[in-house]
Amino acid sequence: MPLRMSTLFVRTLREEPADAELPGHTALLRAGYIRRAGTGLHTWLPLGHRVYRRVEQVVREEMDAIGAQEVHFPALLPKEPYQATGRWEEYGDNLFRLRDRRDNDYLLAPTHEEVFTLLVKDLYASYKDLPVSLYQIQTKYRDEARPRAGLLRGREFVMKDSYSFDVDDAGLEASYDAHRGAYVRIFERLGIPFVIVEAMSGAMGGSRSEEFLAPTPVGEDTFVRSPGGYAANVEAVTTPVPPALPFDDAPAAHVEDTPATPTIETLVAFANEHHPRPDRPWRPADTLKNVVVMLTHPDGSREPLVVGVPGDRDVDAKRLAAQLEPAEVAVFDDDDFAAHPHLVKGYLGPQILGAASETSIRYLVDPRVVTGTRWLTGANAEGHHVFDLVCGRDFTPDGVIEAAEVRDGDPAPDGSGPLELARGIEIGHIFQLGRKYAEALDLKVLDEHGKLVTVTMGSYGIGVSRIVAAIAEACVDDLGLCWPAPIAPARVHLVAAGKGEEINDTAERLAAELEAAGIEVLLDDRPRVSPGVKFKDAELLGMPKILVVGKRLADGVVEVRDRASGEREDVAVDAVVGHLVADASPAPR
Amino acid sequence: MPLRMSTLFVRTLREEPADAELPGHTALLRAGYIRRAGTGLHTWLPLGHRVYRRVEQVVREEMDAIGAQEVHFPALLPKEPYQATGRWEEYGDNLFRLRDRRDNDYLLAPTHEEVFTLLVKDLYASYKDLPVSLYQIQTKYRDEARPRAGLLRGREFVMKDSYSFDVDDAGLEASYDAHRGAYVRIFERLGIPFVIVEAMSGAMGGSRSEEFLAPTPVGEDTFVRSPGGYAANVEAVTTPVPPALPFDDAPAAHVEDTPATPTIETLVAFANEHHPRPDRPWRPADTLKNVVVMLTHPDGSREPLVVGVPGDRDVDAKRLAAQLEPAEVAVFDDDDFAAHPHLVKGYLGPQILGAASETSIRYLVDPRVVTGTRWLTGANAEGHHVFDLVCGRDFTPDGVIEAAEVRDGDPAPDGSGPLELARGIEIGHIFQLGRKYAEALDLKVLDEHGKLVTVTMGSYGIGVSRIVAAIAEACVDDLGLCWPAPIAPARVHLVAAGKGEEINDTAERLAAELEAAGIEVLLDDRPRVSPGVKFKDAELLGMPKILVVGKRLADGVVEVRDRASGEREDVAVDAVVGHLVADASPAPR
Repeated sequence: MPLRMSTLFVRTLREEPADAELPGHTALLRAGYIRRAGTGLHTWLPLGHRVYRRVEQVVREEMDAIGAQEVHFPALLPKEPYQATGRWEEYGDNLFRLRDRRDNDYLLAPTHEEVFTLLVKDLYASYKDLPVSLYQIQTKYRDEARPRAGLLRGREFVMKDSYSFDVDDAGLEASYDAHRGAYVRIFERLGIPFVIVEAMSGAMGGSRSEEFLAPTPVGEDTFVRSPGGYAANVEAVTTPVPPALPFDDAPAAHVEDTPATPTIETLVAFANEHHPRPDRPWRPADTLKNVVVMLTHPDGSREPLVVGVPGDRDVDAKRLAAQLEPAEVAVFDDDDFAAHPHLVKGYLGPQILGAASETSIRYLVDPRVVTGTRWLTGANAEGHHVFDLVCGRDFTPDGVIEAAEVRDGDPAPDGSGPLELARGIEIGHIFQLGRKYAEALDLKVLDEHGKLVTVTMGSYGIGVSRIVAAIAEACVDDLGLCWPAPIAPARVHLVAAGKGEEINDTAERLAAELEAAGIEVLLDDRPRVSPGVKFKDAELLGMPKILVVGKRLADGVVEVRDRASGEREDVAVDAVVGHLVADASPAPR
Repeated sequence: MPLRMSTLFVRTLREEPADAELPGHTALLRAGYIRRAGTGLHTWLPLGHRVYRRVEQVVREEMDAIGAQEVHFPALLPKEPYQATGRWEEYGDNLFRLRDRRDNDYLLAPTHEEVFTLLVKDLYASYKDLPVSLYQIQTKYRDEARPRAGLLRGREFVMKDSYSFDVDDAGLEASYDAHRGAYVRIFERLGIPFVIVEAMSGAMGGSRSEEFLAPTPVGEDTFVRSPGGYAANVEAVTTPVPPALPFDDAPAAHVEDTPATPTIETLVAFANEHHPRPDRPWRPADTLKNVVVMLTHPDGSREPLVVGVPGDRDVDAKRLAAQLEPAEVAVFDDDDFAAHPHLVKGYLGPQILGAASETSIRYLVDPRVVTGTRWLTGANAEGHHVFDLVCGRDFTPDGVIEAAEVRDGDPAPDGSGPLELARGIEIGHIFQLGRKYAEALDLKVLDEHGKLVTVTMGSYGIGVSRIVAAIAEACVDDLGLCWPAPIAPARVHLVAAGKGEEINDTAERLAAELEAAGIEVLLDDRPRVSPGVKFKDAELLGMPKILVVGKRLADGVVEVRDRASGEREDVAVDAVVGHLVADASPAPR
């Protein structure tokens, strides 16, 4: 049976709704696919739910095809397993916590590593039981600080999360590759453009991690690509480390009076005027910019941290935060400066920094700050800077951190050429967890020698509801939505355009014939709606093909429009079913 | 591809698990269909999830078939709509409440009347838009005081809830009937025995309500049936009202000294000894038992209530509670008696009760307490009772309440014969809500005369996860589970019983041929497991047919067992695929 606009629970909106944020999101709201239900909460209307279910089905089929087995956990879980791994605290405000009538602590799970680990521990005991991959398609909860564009970053959303369990690293590698292959097939079948980028393995201690991103200018994630094929999330980009330099001939460091030079620009200008270099002018890259932040660790303890980067670059807050997880990074405010009088705002220098220094404040530097490099930097006194401060001679950082911004044109770490920056929406993430969770929750099996070994795990996520949003953003145009055929609510939007029984009867007949031929139809059979409104709605709703039965029916002709290209074609009414069937027959794009 | 026991994520348990409560529940745990995840929380393992998904699919298809449209709301919802209808408070401890990072109040929805009402209000404005029926298959939360048997009454569970919206009562009646028909088809297709019983329309103000119960001695709901076809939930049973009696000739009421008679038994014995009736002995039914309880209303106010029933019957706590909803009923404790010195424990009588009396304590009586009936009852003084107290002469109740227990043999209210009591599990509930929610949330549409009219609603629920539990309880036997074919994880459990390549190869070949013929197979291909263990597992797991490829293969014979009946049949190996296909071809039972 065709869907019918006359009875479908949908109302299109001419105006942009107040809560619209992005073009695809606006179109989903205007076309009546979703509705806002609260901050970071949305309701699927019938058309949207149809798309959602199609995405879910493709994900399920491809997971089943790699032998992953579907289970289903509650979203509401007791606190204890998450306490055992520390995530009850680490998640901070992002976790929805609640109490039951007996005052026991529960959470709405943001992800399920703990309980999957415990389930396998519960059932399995031997290497013979492994490998196993389990998945669920399930509702997750995160109390996001900044929910975005309905489905894109919601507080309640659906994820397919799977977990692999292997007895050794080679097994994990194989499970990881199987998931990677399944994800490629899923996104190809869905017709969503994607790139695979290296991602942070992060504080979880895993060894390999990749993200699947749908490229779009409205994406929240920044990634880089090189002509030679390198691709990485910007948080994961590593900086090529230059060789150490000899510094035997370097002059001794000397502090100079540099009044009113709190910024790199003012400092470089002052240095060029009062202390010019013999070889070339001072440049921002000759300066060492030291940025102090306040870290809060999961246990609540606080610690200042200074990060040193070449002065021509800013610290990238997201890269910095990713490196320091699960600690949270905050601005070092006036109260913090007051509590640390050694730190002179605008004139921070490494001479007094480092675990071994008088302040014992941790000091991490950009990978470009190698031994032998000479810097113009703060002298820890208002209006004073130090020249020719040599790394490895005059100061010793506590380590290296990837916190400097990445720029168009920076070299790829693998030598594959200059990087180009782009944006995308994260639609999948695959991750070698390793043994972190198995160790925390004591998941061991007997190996072939009868020895207990800790299981190694992978974790693999796809944002099922987010994919609908990502496809909407990827496929939206000025007229509205434009779905890839495999997930469109129907393949053909059949418009009965005009009055008269013949038009209606023909539209009804064609709808029935198309459905009988396996082509799903959304039939606009609304009796008192003008052709103009129907065309606008058809464009907004975004079925791949629009079939118009109108005035030219008198000549035996109907019109087929391709929603994506806008191409129009007159087809004999008797041939149009065959025409549309033939069009649908090739493999979905 | 067949399911394979060698890789399936399942471990059967020989022992009864500690958390097992009922036979079907025990079998679901032992067979590895579900696993406990916390109080009132469970995890679906692969076999269980397969059954669950089949139930879900049948429900979805039948809802679609009556033109209901699927949507999906969040489970996490802001408090405001539930405050508007009073349910934020009324739900009491049963509601999971939580706060987000901005300290706003949220709930995990136990049911979604409010937001469906608001959604229709949002999109629709005219009688031309109606009728519409919307549904969702969605996870619900209730902080049950006493969760039971895993899936049977959980704190997180899946419901199909639908809501109909009509412009008038005739429309509601038609929507209700359509849902009723769909429910009948759903339960028939699932192969679950069921009865339809009248249910309480309750405090919600609706006019018609029926429950679908799966009869089983372990059910929580009590219902009644008569030989003439009457069926009702025990809460909904109404008592035939006897005609009023003349009382002109009745003697005046007289108080007698009745020491040490706090119970009906002691009172009747005392009366027969000291104040014998001329016509026959005193019977418990001649006494009027007055039970005082404390009501707590949703607004927190408290009020004593006295209920009078013939002394041969107890007050049924569930019937009483159902009548008084949303107020909560509590025991009248010693403190309450102390605060109400007029009420003498064990000697309560109606003379001082009623809104118009000196105490103004509300007094409701059983329908059998009609005008002219004469009672032996408490005299509101320790050790004293009153004889010949006539209803309508000596006391006037404030109204009638259906709170007395219903007994086997009581007459059906429609005259269709004596009632028989039985137990069942509620698997569906259909309900004419009427205009309560539409009024509270102002859902109006313009009628054909351009006048605003309030929409009338129905609400229809099916416990999708509970159905799996109900079927397990209905079909379990001493050996384990025994699924109806339409929802079994596979139709055939194929046991390769014995060693030798020929047995394994034949089992593999038959599995492949059966799957190719559309018969789903669970293949027990475990290499180091004995036939005895495999048979036990096959019986426990409960596929409708067990196909044994064993020693008799040498004679060209395999065995087909029917799990439900236990019948065994030898079939030629070359004929067995055709045999099983033919068996599966008739409509599912």
